[in-house]
Amino acid sequence: MHDPARRTITELAAALGSGELKPSEVIDACLAQADACESDVRAWAHLGADNARMAARLLDQISSTGPLYGVPFGIKDIIETSDMPTGYGTPIYHHHQPARDAACVALLREASGVCLGKTVTTELAHFHPGKTRNPHGLTHTPGGSSSGSAAAVAACMVPVALGTQTTGSVLRPASYCGVYGFKPSFGDVSRSGVMECVSSFDTVGWFTRSVADVEIVRQALVRIPFVPLQKPATTSLRVGLFRGPDWAEAEDYTKELLEGAASKLAKAGANVSDVASPDGFGDIATHHRTIAGYEFARAITWERTQRAPLLSPKLVDGRCADGLASTYEQYAEAQSALVRQRAQYAQMMEAYDVLLTPSAPGEAWSGLGATGVPTFNTAWTALHVPALSAPAFSGPSGMPVGLQLVGKFRQDAALLGAAETVCAALDVEIVRGV
Amino acid sequence: MHDPARRTITELAAALGSGELKPSEVIDACLAQADACESDVRAWAHLGADNARMAARLLDQISSTGPLYGVPFGIKDIIETSDMPTGYGTPIYHHHQPARDAACVALLREASGVCLGKTVTTELAHFHPGKTRNPHGLTHTPGGSSSGSAAAVAACMVPVALGTQTTGSVLRPASYCGVYGFKPSFGDVSRSGVMECVSSFDTVGWFTRSVADVEIVRQALVRIPFVPLQKPATTSLRVGLFRGPDWAEAEDYTKELLEGAASKLAKAGANVSDVASPDGFGDIATHHRTIAGYEFARAITWERTQRAPLLSPKLVDGRCADGLASTYEQYAEAQSALVRQRAQYAQMMEAYDVLLTPSAPGEAWSGLGATGVPTFNTAWTALHVPALSAPAFSGPSGMPVGLQLVGKFRQDAALLGAAETVCAALDVEIVRGV
Repeated sequence: MHDPARRTITELAAALGSGELKPSEVIDACLAQADACESDVRAWAHLGADNARMAARLLDQISSTGPLYGVPFGIKDIIETSDMPTGYGTPIYHHHQPARDAACVALLREASGVCLGKTVTTELAHFHPGKTRNPHGLTHTPGGSSSGSAAAVAACMVPVALGTQTTGSVLRPASYCGVYGFKPSFGDVSRSGVMECVSSFDTVGWFTRSVADVEIVRQALVRIPFVPLQKPATTSLRVGLFRGPDWAEAEDYTKELLEGAASKLAKAGANVSDVASPDGFGDIATHHRTIAGYEFARAITWERTQRAPLLSPKLVDGRCADGLASTYEQYAEAQSALVRQRAQYAQMMEAYDVLLTPSAPGEAWSGLGATGVPTFNTAWTALHVPALSAPAFSGPSGMPVGLQLVGKFRQDAALLGAAETVCAALDVEIVRGV
Repeated sequence: MHDPARRTITELAAALGSGELKPSEVIDACLAQADACESDVRAWAHLGADNARMAARLLDQISSTGPLYGVPFGIKDIIETSDMPTGYGTPIYHHHQPARDAACVALLREASGVCLGKTVTTELAHFHPGKTRNPHGLTHTPGGSSSGSAAAVAACMVPVALGTQTTGSVLRPASYCGVYGFKPSFGDVSRSGVMECVSSFDTVGWFTRSVADVEIVRQALVRIPFVPLQKPATTSLRVGLFRGPDWAEAEDYTKELLEGAASKLAKAGANVSDVASPDGFGDIATHHRTIAGYEFARAITWERTQRAPLLSPKLVDGRCADGLASTYEQYAEAQSALVRQRAQYAQMMEAYDVLLTPSAPGEAWSGLGATGVPTFNTAWTALHVPALSAPAFSGPSGMPVGLQLVGKFRQDAALLGAAETVCAALDVEIVRGV
């Protein structure tokens, strides 16, 4: 494994710190990998090769500075960049050039990372797919809406890429593309400069090829001092197997894989038990839909009123129409119900360190016309809690299937520490690319 | 009172609906008023006279459509406009032209309002003042950060202007400039396209010259069907006189004016009683400061790292430095404390319909070098509850002093209905300009 493009951030940091590699060599390796596979994968809305090479050459001149020194990253194209266009997955913003970097981009740059480009998003981070294909099977969807970010990391064009999740837009593509995908606790990463879809749920998330990398990026984005993850002993871990109200939606093989993982963990000494859904948990998706439609239809008033012919009919007749049909009272009641659900979840989680649940019903759908469903993601987004998809399994077609680990609000480091232990016990490894 | 520029939205709607006035006549009257007083007041960062005249002439051709048909409005210059520059009160964004309208601008336009221009803000909606002067006394601050919006409405250049409040940036300038200023419940108005300062508190607010106008604009911005305010009988009103932990910061005349208003309401038959501060209420401002600094320093990472020499030292050495010095644990604890305070407040308010409290310690400060302090505003912003400043009083120098009315979360119409009753009982009238 000498190709810098296939290394993790952790490995790159060691090589860059020791002088074995220079930032420009890392960027060149990633750009070479993009040359090799972008025509198949189509992960990029804009590849800023020249900008990235220039930034890397500047870093070559100085020794390691920030925690992401010389690390290339990709940015979902609903996030503003000062030196690359931002297209939001819609012809409305073709060639649009923002004036500044979104906070999350500026924070990765403050940590000495190098932006390689903008990754494909579905239309306004909703359903209408972009051009990206799944690196594990080019006739399969990569998932959405953070399609290009998941695919770019899976294809080893970058070791990390940012996405966003309002429903299941990080966890699902991570599961489909066989990479780690993380949605932090709501509010922990600034959304300044990120397109507002649904203010109550929008969360910046990211894709990497190891758990340790998830945490390094998290610390840069939350902007907290670097502290290595604490990995609890397997025998100290209280694991809840959460089938939940949507269990019937999971494929049989997904159920078997998940239950097999729970058994394996129990055999390794973890304290594993079944978790019953809290009262009203099954209604969370309905509350989420009410709030998401209500807020989205208002947030995109300019596009809806001034650029309607350029929006997809599914967006206008679906989420927008839904959102304008909901009353304020319905919206407020849905918000209140979620406040109660969050308190109930916190109480339930006093007995667990981490929940195990599917990341998605199964393998990525065949075909590029739709990006799949957020069935097993919506509730955790609505509850504001951290969730990780680990590339733990593969399905009957050999396509990846994710294992979702869910933690407690604002205890993201604890979730990721537990995830390291779980992944070690299950032999879930660092991803080396397709 | 034939000058259209001095009329309220309610009055304009009647005149525009009956055909007594055409939209272009209203715009011309407001532009004439701007011609007459802008050189003194300096409310505008950009006056879009040509755009506004063109929009009004288009409206002239059709009959009344939306609830703000032909109503001119101003927009704080940290809010994006597709057809006018947006400068954020800093040289960093001199001549910056956004691609779209913020949701709140698009919603006012969807309601057939006409944007007259962008109003002066302090630097990035913080402390460093803009050029605006108080229409009631040109040597006095108009307050901030929504300085230009408050002054433009006070000087009758527009009947409504949008501001934003993260601490006290709507309520304070409303008090200082002698207009109605309203901060709705947190989350009720989309912030898409509004500069993110502190995501946990940022709220779009607005200034008008009557309570009824506050509600008309609220319904357009929340995008709910038009329903007239329900005004409760004075004798049914449960009013809490809230002195609070900062009472000593209020000027003696402010204390007397507020207590006098409470007595007058009691004599008019309202059920008025003293309210004790809930436990921990006095710490809310500290929690607010922790969260505001923490989030702001992250939100403006690009400006802080790439444009630092263009930021004021007070911003860099003050809020930014504070925010970077706070730990995640301090931040999380402050957030948790506010969640507890919100629940406590809701419980306390079961006994009241509305609280009376000062809008500001007293009259606008003399001098233009500082915009005053948010002493009596911070807590309500942190609690996410609706608050109105009514131009009820004047101080020893003849400058305006506001009366603040505070309501319950997501019961904004109830607060404004109660405010109509309170203002009628106290003879607080429609504002006709300086």
